[in-house]
Amino acid sequence: MEREQAGKILDRFRAVVDMEIARALEKGLDIPLYDMIRYHLGLDRTGAGTPAPATGKRVRAALCCLSSEAVGGEAQAAAPAAAAVELIHSFTLLHDDVADGDATRRGRAAVWKRWGVAHAITAGDALFSLANLVAAKLTERGVPTAESLAVVEELNAAALAVCEGQQMDISYEGRADVSVDDYLAMVERKTAALMAAACGAGACVGGGSVESAAALREFGRQLGLGFQIRDDILGMWGGPSELGKPVGTDLKRNKRSLPILHALDAVGGKLAAQLAEGVTSDEEAAQIAARMQEIGSRAFCEGMARSFLARGCEALEHVNLQVGPREQLRVLASYLVERTQ
Amino acid sequence: MEREQAGKILDRFRAVVDMEIARALEKGLDIPLYDMIRYHLGLDRTGAGTPAPATGKRVRAALCCLSSEAVGGEAQAAAPAAAAVELIHSFTLLHDDVADGDATRRGRAAVWKRWGVAHAITAGDALFSLANLVAAKLTERGVPTAESLAVVEELNAAALAVCEGQQMDISYEGRADVSVDDYLAMVERKTAALMAAACGAGACVGGGSVESAAALREFGRQLGLGFQIRDDILGMWGGPSELGKPVGTDLKRNKRSLPILHALDAVGGKLAAQLAEGVTSDEEAAQIAARMQEIGSRAFCEGMARSFLARGCEALEHVNLQVGPREQLRVLASYLVERTQ
Repeated sequence: MEREQAGKILDRFRAVVDMEIARALEKGLDIPLYDMIRYHLGLDRTGAGTPAPATGKRVRAALCCLSSEAVGGEAQAAAPAAAAVELIHSFTLLHDDVADGDATRRGRAAVWKRWGVAHAITAGDALFSLANLVAAKLTERGVPTAESLAVVEELNAAALAVCEGQQMDISYEGRADVSVDDYLAMVERKTAALMAAACGAGACVGGGSVESAAALREFGRQLGLGFQIRDDILGMWGGPSELGKPVGTDLKRNKRSLPILHALDAVGGKLAAQLAEGVTSDEEAAQIAARMQEIGSRAFCEGMARSFLARGCEALEHVNLQVGPREQLRVLASYLVERTQ
Repeated sequence: MEREQAGKILDRFRAVVDMEIARALEKGLDIPLYDMIRYHLGLDRTGAGTPAPATGKRVRAALCCLSSEAVGGEAQAAAPAAAAVELIHSFTLLHDDVADGDATRRGRAAVWKRWGVAHAITAGDALFSLANLVAAKLTERGVPTAESLAVVEELNAAALAVCEGQQMDISYEGRADVSVDDYLAMVERKTAALMAAACGAGACVGGGSVESAAALREFGRQLGLGFQIRDDILGMWGGPSELGKPVGTDLKRNKRSLPILHALDAVGGKLAAQLAEGVTSDEEAAQIAARMQEIGSRAFCEGMARSFLARGCEALEHVNLQVGPREQLRVLASYLVERTQ
């Protein structure tokens, strides 16, 4: 039910934001660089009989547009800001795939796997440039110059935070001394910063007050923390059915996800030794994941995710926002933090 | 003599721009990401007895500051724009090193060689974010909001062009059908666009007219074309002494540099066959380079570089610019296109 409602909310913004992105790409030269970018964004043309390519959910675009509406602005005017946020998110995914050596993205070959590392790095850089060009063009939609520049600044500050988080994440891999606080400091940057900026940029473009923008930004930040913890839960225990992710993915990657940090703290030595040796088989990963559930790692993470969600929704209580969009932000947040795939 | 004059011009802006960059980095967290960035920029602290790290020449920063002065602005006010241009240039070099597998940069290990590919990609992305943050802060130095936003747009359009050029350059490698026009279309983007933007941004920040900005931009563009051809000449025949680059570097990398395109056109088949087989030994590379000089490839490139230099200087003739800075732009351009290392 909640999933259905959330799906409708996401659908409401997808077309307008994808059109905005397509327009930004239209001006590009007829060179393969733009094919790579369209492919990564799931906007490549498919022939008859070919299934539509997988696109992202455009979650951050919806957050941006809803935040604009929540302060009384129009979603349409926020579309370029929403497109810019999605382009930044997409560029970080493209580069993360190279950095992590992930060969697939949304069921298809990652850009680096298909075109090579050199082209993938360049395509990501181009996406980042395009994001800034789209944001700089906000003035053409009637957004005042000062607000347009503020959006550029907010988005690039978030992009820098994502880089900081990514560097921390890479440096945590395999380390024995990462604490939950270290983890949260990393997620704050790698995931929460851009969700916060999506809401902040929407509020700014919609002409919201400083207080409303701050509240929406805080909502986005808390949502981002809860969202990432849900991602970690799925990365450990997978989805509920054949649709879901395989169990124990993050064990095999030796990531320092929240479930793993909890379990290391709870059972210490033995798990640490297993991780240090490297978990390679699906069987071993499934056994460890089951044991972690028994000792309460999953319940711990679920509780923490829900508490971030609650704090995020709470942040929206104390400012004056449009009721409809505020409710939609809550539905979306709740779906994202409770999702099962 | 010209080299000495050019050195003085570059030195005049280096300190102020490096201080600007250092200030932008100061705010960063105390995490290794910023060590990587400082190292790449040659701004890492060295202990007693350690030679100062190699920094770039900061050519683009000087072009930006001189362009501001040429339209009657102050170099000091242009410093953040100049810093942003240098940060963009630096990020493209950092990522190019990964893409091309170049293990050294200015006599030291490249970032990817020292910290790995994943960290190098992230450090480059962070540099790009920082560039935009520095540009967005131009308003704090009294630059009007509209001009600050225009600089952001100009720099990101140039960054996108650099990506287009980089993608074209990679795709040309080893291809038999690349024409001189293809080459110029690539260099226009990969090298000339950012030099043009450096001049355009300087003119914009300095409060220049649309005509002055266009003339300075055209100067930067022509200079960029000449500069890259000189780079190609050095990449084929090296420097004059033990200080210079080794002979035939670009032959071994199978790049489609201008000297190689000229030679392929002049002697065709035999050279094409050698390149297709791959040039691996220094001896073979030196022999081919000598033969190319005999058939006029070097003279062809020198002539072309000089003609771009002349056109660049010509572009400055028809607008009203401050005489001193205009002369310095000419001296700098002439040095860059005629340089021997």
